[in-house]
Amino acid sequence: MAASDGGALPSIHVYEFDTDTAVRRVGTNGSTSTWAAHLTDAWSIGQNPNGGYVLAAAVRAMSEALPRHPDPFTVTSHYLRPAQPGPATISVEIIRLGRKHATVMAALVQDDKERIRVLGTFGDLAEPSGPNRMEATPPHLPPPGQCVRREEGHVDGSTIGSRVDILLHPETGWIRGTPAGTASLSGWASFKDGRPADPLALVFFADGFPPALFDSLEEKVWLPTIELTVHVRAKPAPGPLRGRTRTRFLLNGYLEEDGELWDSADRLVAQSRQLGMLFRP
Amino acid sequence: MAASDGGALPSIHVYEFDTDTAVRRVGTNGSTSTWAAHLTDAWSIGQNPNGGYVLAAAVRAMSEALPRHPDPFTVTSHYLRPAQPGPATISVEIIRLGRKHATVMAALVQDDKERIRVLGTFGDLAEPSGPNRMEATPPHLPPPGQCVRREEGHVDGSTIGSRVDILLHPETGWIRGTPAGTASLSGWASFKDGRPADPLALVFFADGFPPALFDSLEEKVWLPTIELTVHVRAKPAPGPLRGRTRTRFLLNGYLEEDGELWDSADRLVAQSRQLGMLFRP
Repeated sequence: MAASDGGALPSIHVYEFDTDTAVRRVGTNGSTSTWAAHLTDAWSIGQNPNGGYVLAAAVRAMSEALPRHPDPFTVTSHYLRPAQPGPATISVEIIRLGRKHATVMAALVQDDKERIRVLGTFGDLAEPSGPNRMEATPPHLPPPGQCVRREEGHVDGSTIGSRVDILLHPETGWIRGTPAGTASLSGWASFKDGRPADPLALVFFADGFPPALFDSLEEKVWLPTIELTVHVRAKPAPGPLRGRTRTRFLLNGYLEEDGELWDSADRLVAQSRQLGMLFRP
Repeated sequence: MAASDGGALPSIHVYEFDTDTAVRRVGTNGSTSTWAAHLTDAWSIGQNPNGGYVLAAAVRAMSEALPRHPDPFTVTSHYLRPAQPGPATISVEIIRLGRKHATVMAALVQDDKERIRVLGTFGDLAEPSGPNRMEATPPHLPPPGQCVRREEGHVDGSTIGSRVDILLHPETGWIRGTPAGTASLSGWASFKDGRPADPLALVFFADGFPPALFDSLEEKVWLPTIELTVHVRAKPAPGPLRGRTRTRFLLNGYLEEDGELWDSADRLVAQSRQLGMLFRP
């Protein structure tokens, strides 16, 4: 189409999250395929790429390896070692390709060291139909402008705060320096460059909120994730996501963190749970 | 020791759950080992071994394959096809053997068809120490004698009800034929032969309660599990377990079910979440 036609060219947005989770198939051997990725330093907390970002790259390879069933319905990641910015190789095994679901495993390796192992079942979120019933409602949040930005400045070198807007409820005690005594947080979540949320983004944002336990502790702690499971329940409607996280049980230094992500249509779109452990620096 | 000494011989209980989850190493190749198991028909719902029982056999092989870190801290099972009573082969890969944790994968195969794929991180529950904080309390239950036995009779051929006592709160509407309108259940859980609960039993009982959704539906449905994740949080104190399950979100025919198991010392000992789907027969 010539510009002189007066028609607008279709605008093609290239979003950073898509560029930075891009994977390229480099080999196939039966039900196993190998993918090349490049983890960037744009999604880091401290020196290490955020766990949700690393998982998103692996899930993207799992999805692209499948001839159908592109959407992650449930993915579980075990964090073996911190990932690093730089090249990564992802091995994907299609365990079972069924009529409604596909079960897939992935291993993300850097410098001959495995960083995460992922097991997931995929399907097609355009397809599911069936009864609906919700016994909970989305978090009540003031408009984003009245919420408080998550500050990453407390960890040197963090870059993820330049890529996402995590805007916490203004009554969150932790961000005011006065922990509230209950381990729960809520807030808005979106990409700064306007990339719409989709199932892959839900996997990423499931690890995007600060630990809920921060709101119940006076001291500074480090809470590395051992395992994260995300259930993607629906394709999100356009608009920012709302999330909440909660920790109810800290036992012998181990804790779960439960998360929910809701879309602008007041529908639950993802649930997550992780097992973490508490370190005092 | 002679009987005439008057001393009692130490009694050796052989519990059915231990016999029926026994595994035997049949091969080792680097970090991968192969195990033989025999799934019995003693833990079935209908014609198929219960998913928690099948998972327990796999977790036992994963644990026995490890030189240390015997306890499952978090295990995720994806259910590919129903298992059958009969021989099974379990392949175990030790992905990482660390100082505090080991990450392990298992595939349980019958007749050349994989039935479940499991990914887990193991540790030593005798070891963990660290801060404790609980924001919830165990379910309030009348004594077991005042609770109501889970009936398996509605599915022909079920045998699991002869091996475990699942005694539901008497106010559970579903078992009285009048669903309560909320998708939650609570009750006591124990082995009929008196086998004490341990981490492996927690993995089993995490799938032992009837679906919470039964208490909110008038109609008969079938709710196969796609994925089950169990976090074992502590070794249980002696005595029966108390459990509760809850489903909050049924979306397009898919649902999560969250479970908790508590010990007699009022401590949370396991959390679980599964993703299932609803079928109308």
